[in-house]
Amino acid sequence: MLDDKFFMKRALFLAKKANWRTSPNPMVGAVIVKDGKIISEGYHKKAGLPHAEAEAIMSAKESLDGATLYVTLEPCCHRDKKTPPCTDAIINSGIRRVVVAMRDPNPKVSGKGIELLKNYGIEVIEGVFEEEAKKLNEFYIKYVTTRTPFVILKIAMTMDGKIATPRGESKWITSEKSRKLVHLIRSRVDALLSACGTVLKDNPMFTSRIKGGKNPLRVIIDPELKIPLDYHVYSPPPHTIAVVHETKLHDNKVKILQSRGVEIISFSSEKVDLQWLMKELGKREITSLMIEGGSSLNSYALWSGVVDKLMIFIAPKIIGGADSYPSVGGKIYKNLNEAFEIKDLKIKKISDDILIEGYLKKA
Amino acid sequence: MLDDKFFMKRALFLAKKANWRTSPNPMVGAVIVKDGKIISEGYHKKAGLPHAEAEAIMSAKESLDGATLYVTLEPCCHRDKKTPPCTDAIINSGIRRVVVAMRDPNPKVSGKGIELLKNYGIEVIEGVFEEEAKKLNEFYIKYVTTRTPFVILKIAMTMDGKIATPRGESKWITSEKSRKLVHLIRSRVDALLSACGTVLKDNPMFTSRIKGGKNPLRVIIDPELKIPLDYHVYSPPPHTIAVVHETKLHDNKVKILQSRGVEIISFSSEKVDLQWLMKELGKREITSLMIEGGSSLNSYALWSGVVDKLMIFIAPKIIGGADSYPSVGGKIYKNLNEAFEIKDLKIKKISDDILIEGYLKKA
Repeated sequence: MLDDKFFMKRALFLAKKANWRTSPNPMVGAVIVKDGKIISEGYHKKAGLPHAEAEAIMSAKESLDGATLYVTLEPCCHRDKKTPPCTDAIINSGIRRVVVAMRDPNPKVSGKGIELLKNYGIEVIEGVFEEEAKKLNEFYIKYVTTRTPFVILKIAMTMDGKIATPRGESKWITSEKSRKLVHLIRSRVDALLSACGTVLKDNPMFTSRIKGGKNPLRVIIDPELKIPLDYHVYSPPPHTIAVVHETKLHDNKVKILQSRGVEIISFSSEKVDLQWLMKELGKREITSLMIEGGSSLNSYALWSGVVDKLMIFIAPKIIGGADSYPSVGGKIYKNLNEAFEIKDLKIKKISDDILIEGYLKKA
Repeated sequence: MLDDKFFMKRALFLAKKANWRTSPNPMVGAVIVKDGKIISEGYHKKAGLPHAEAEAIMSAKESLDGATLYVTLEPCCHRDKKTPPCTDAIINSGIRRVVVAMRDPNPKVSGKGIELLKNYGIEVIEGVFEEEAKKLNEFYIKYVTTRTPFVILKIAMTMDGKIATPRGESKWITSEKSRKLVHLIRSRVDALLSACGTVLKDNPMFTSRIKGGKNPLRVIIDPELKIPLDYHVYSPPPHTIAVVHETKLHDNKVKILQSRGVEIISFSSEKVDLQWLMKELGKREITSLMIEGGSSLNSYALWSGVVDKLMIFIAPKIIGGADSYPSVGGKIYKNLNEAFEIKDLKIKKISDDILIEGYLKKA
């Protein structure tokens, strides 16, 4: 058992090497052990490239007869994708024991991979570092079970809960180190969601300005097409999806944006339905999304029920003012006994700032 | 030096046994060591009772010739009080070495006690656990150097920085454990400051409902005498000071309040000057005060420059709403480059809540 933990830790370490570049696939690491020694390793690098187990089996330089495979996710058993099922490779390899951190929540797998291995007489151990594995693939788990992205609501506020002065000043509330961390998260999520208010105020690029970081797709709610054409978000790359009210579809701006490669999604309701929007983004294989907006969008996202995780950066500053912008605004509010509740809090110091991470309790 | 730390730690432990009951005096602990062994101990229990050094010297059961005294604060040398100067007792005791954690910032002492001991050939070591000693007596240090109380601004808010819904609901934002800690702080400070808005809304008792806890004096800003006579704060004990506009001094309510023992302080300016109020309270030997008010008082106290320390309890809840009460309100606000800054942050989990403590950076 102690050994199982040791080797699974290594497999988790390998999984993380993919650095959130496997979307829409999960990050998976695998280690093959024989006579107490690691004889081969692998991890899933990118969608379309071999799975971790396949990579470890292929790169082994000796016989796998009687070996143990450690893998952070249940091996796949379906043929509904580009790569062959890993269960076949395992069964044919001579591996006699498989330790998995977690079952694959993908309805196409979901225990069937483990079942198949057992049917072939392979011993299967489950649940070693299960929590860690689930945390690592929280994007994938949400997406594969709901076909909508895992949503992070990011807020950068003062100690008194303000995100801007009454004049809209918000540059910069948090420290450079906190902002760098936001850029790192941008490089990990598939998309970023904001609205015209924030874009009009700051003309942000919403790119991931870290070395080697990939840029998220930008999803901008701009119902009335108020954002000028020369703003960063309307000058791809990176790719932008503009969410526009259908009454504006015949606006000349739409054609210009489309000619630049900006994708237009339209809606007919009074306000955009975020549940619907998440489904639309899910169809485009967006598995994760970070919201970087203002008081209203933060409120709207929470009330829409789309938020999974909160990342609240708190700067050690107070600006006060009843008219300053609150972190969560909106016309409606929750009474205390029905407030949005945040669980599994994690608190970190980021230079002088405090980062509070937590998950929204679902009703 | 290792020994010095060991024995000073013990002296600090003894000092704390006074449990914030020595006001307006500091909390002080003393240990006498001979041949590497503690032969006597003492701590200052209450103003009027013996000082820590005197108690340790008096209770020693053997000769102190050549002994070392560990004391958390520089021994006093002035005769301007009920108890004799400790320097005399030390000099006469035969003690040859004195280790002090910090100098006494009281202008009447301030190095003179140490000087006197040295003049008598006693070796004096300074600065052992100085930070800890200063922290322990932060109320005393502020008071003895400024003759105004050390001021703690307490805020209990949601994760989005709200202290009440638009309808004024604020019971309870934080957990029972956080509220108990507030009661503990109430038992440590000399006074509590609030204003009529908060009192009218909640009719609070502002007492310290913990076993054996002493109640703080209640200072209530009620310029127009709007608080009804049957409210808790106007039914002493504990003692209440009502801060009233001078135009209301001839109101019949004033006589009734005075007949109940409520003290009336009046002011003539448009709004009460908190710097002035702190001086008034200082004259009454209030060495420490906690502010428990609403959005406006929190803002006003910060802008008045009276706040020394912040204690912000954050509940893992979000209520949202642009019209919810912000933790720090007011008509005015700070631009980001001139925001109130908080330093020396300490973060604690209090059951599900987060407590952030810090000190206001003075301009």
